Amino acid sequence: MVPRGEIRVIPVPLAGEIRPGDDLVEKLTAALRHQRLKLRTGDILVVKHKIVSKAEGQVKPLGSVKPSLGARSWSRRSGIDARVIELALSVSKRIVRKKKGVLITETRHGFTCANSGVDVSNVDGGESAVLLPKNPDRSAANLRTRLKRRFRCDIAVIISDSFGRPWREGLTEVAIGIAGMKPLADYRGQRDPHGYALHASYEAVADEVACAAGLVCGKLNRTPVCIVRGFAIQSGRGSARELIRPAKNDLFR
Amino acid sequence: MVPRGEIRVIPVPLAGEIRPGDDLVEKLTAALRHQRLKLRTGDILVVKHKIVSKAEGQVKPLGSVKPSLGARSWSRRSGIDARVIELALSVSKRIVRKKKGVLITETRHGFTCANSGVDVSNVDGGESAVLLPKNPDRSAANLRTRLKRRFRCDIAVIISDSFGRPWREGLTEVAIGIAGMKPLADYRGQRDPHGYALHASYEAVADEVACAAGLVCGKLNRTPVCIVRGFAIQSGRGSARELIRPAKNDLFR
Repeated sequence: MVPRGEIRVIPVPLAGEIRPGDDLVEKLTAALRHQRLKLRTGDILVVKHKIVSKAEGQVKPLGSVKPSLGARSWSRRSGIDARVIELALSVSKRIVRKKKGVLITETRHGFTCANSGVDVSNVDGGESAVLLPKNPDRSAANLRTRLKRRFRCDIAVIISDSFGRPWREGLTEVAIGIAGMKPLADYRGQRDPHGYALHASYEAVADEVACAAGLVCGKLNRTPVCIVRGFAIQSGRGSARELIRPAKNDLFR
Repeated sequence: MVPRGEIRVIPVPLAGEIRPGDDLVEKLTAALRHQRLKLRTGDILVVKHKIVSKAEGQVKPLGSVKPSLGARSWSRRSGIDARVIELALSVSKRIVRKKKGVLITETRHGFTCANSGVDVSNVDGGESAVLLPKNPDRSAANLRTRLKRRFRCDIAVIISDSFGRPWREGLTEVAIGIAGMKPLADYRGQRDPHGYALHASYEAVADEVACAAGLVCGKLNRTPVCIVRGFAIQSGRGSARELIRPAKNDLFR
């Protein structure tokens, strides 16, 4: 086991807004250049999903959404905008819980989160909602391929969102799209320094990287990107789907 | 809102083993000196709970545990050591799920986790189990008070453990004891750069700090401590209990 050295989490503020059709790689390159930062082999670029969704056009003007009767009724009881509920249901596979003013769904990707990840903050002041990227792994892979070429180095990319969770208060960041790294560190069968064989020990390192990134990418500071440098990634294809617990093993669906 | 700058996660490997009765502050000070590191105001010292539990004597020789009939029966079905189950039940308030080989309990502190946090890895090769600290907030506060005095600076302390979670694979670190910082960043009522007022937006920054620490504190590398430097903590009393969702708001109990 390689000892883990110091890790740096380097914010990459973006100038201006990302709009549908923008070339995110150009914007990221400009932001990195502006800060005299270069990507290096082994870096993990963590990108908040919202700018990916915006660049990919996953933005819906709320004025164009016609909420169903059901969405309107739940809106009255929950206080959530009926059009957001309508959008959330339209991109969901299944309602997980709808209770106490909270709508938790399983998205088409398989993520379990509030309102299918549909969000009105950090868009345009309440006129539009942003959906999750259609295929966040593919979005991550596309960014990675082009950035690797541009910076002539091998990096990983994580696309993150803030999810709530049962039992604990507060949102934390999770990886919803991954390219170039394994999301889970598998300790099974390895021995601790006392010779004890570890069981059932997977560490969700991609989510921990996303959380570390969350500490510099706040909701209010126009910093939707950062570099996590120094973490010994286990390279490989990797997919954020590996972080989704299969239904048959999940006790809390 | 202060822009968030670069964050460093600096590992602090410990020489040798922590044993019941050891003075953790002396051991930490020696480890920091050995690395020519000094704690600075604003640092967050993140300490894996296991060394805190060990120093506090929360270690049980499994040979001394007499499992009940129920514990033995669940052991046969789950493959978990009956004595670990017995210990887990003895420090639990409530069984949350007991299914598919997994025992999830609510601990006396209110944490929901597998086997009440009772763990046999990284102790002595399988002879003993470590329990969670009795009062992790108090353990954090004690460490903080003495370290502040010793290093003449104001720091925060987080005691962390690896918990599983519903819906997602892999363990991530969570804060189970906190001193000197607020565990949640409250965005409610603040406005994003577009003027949109954020609702329902708490960020569990203490858990995100614990996750960042998890990236340098592996299970196999004798590094149960690290410094998270550069995060603008919101100082205040803070308690890990603030991270526990009250039963009445929890849809997944």
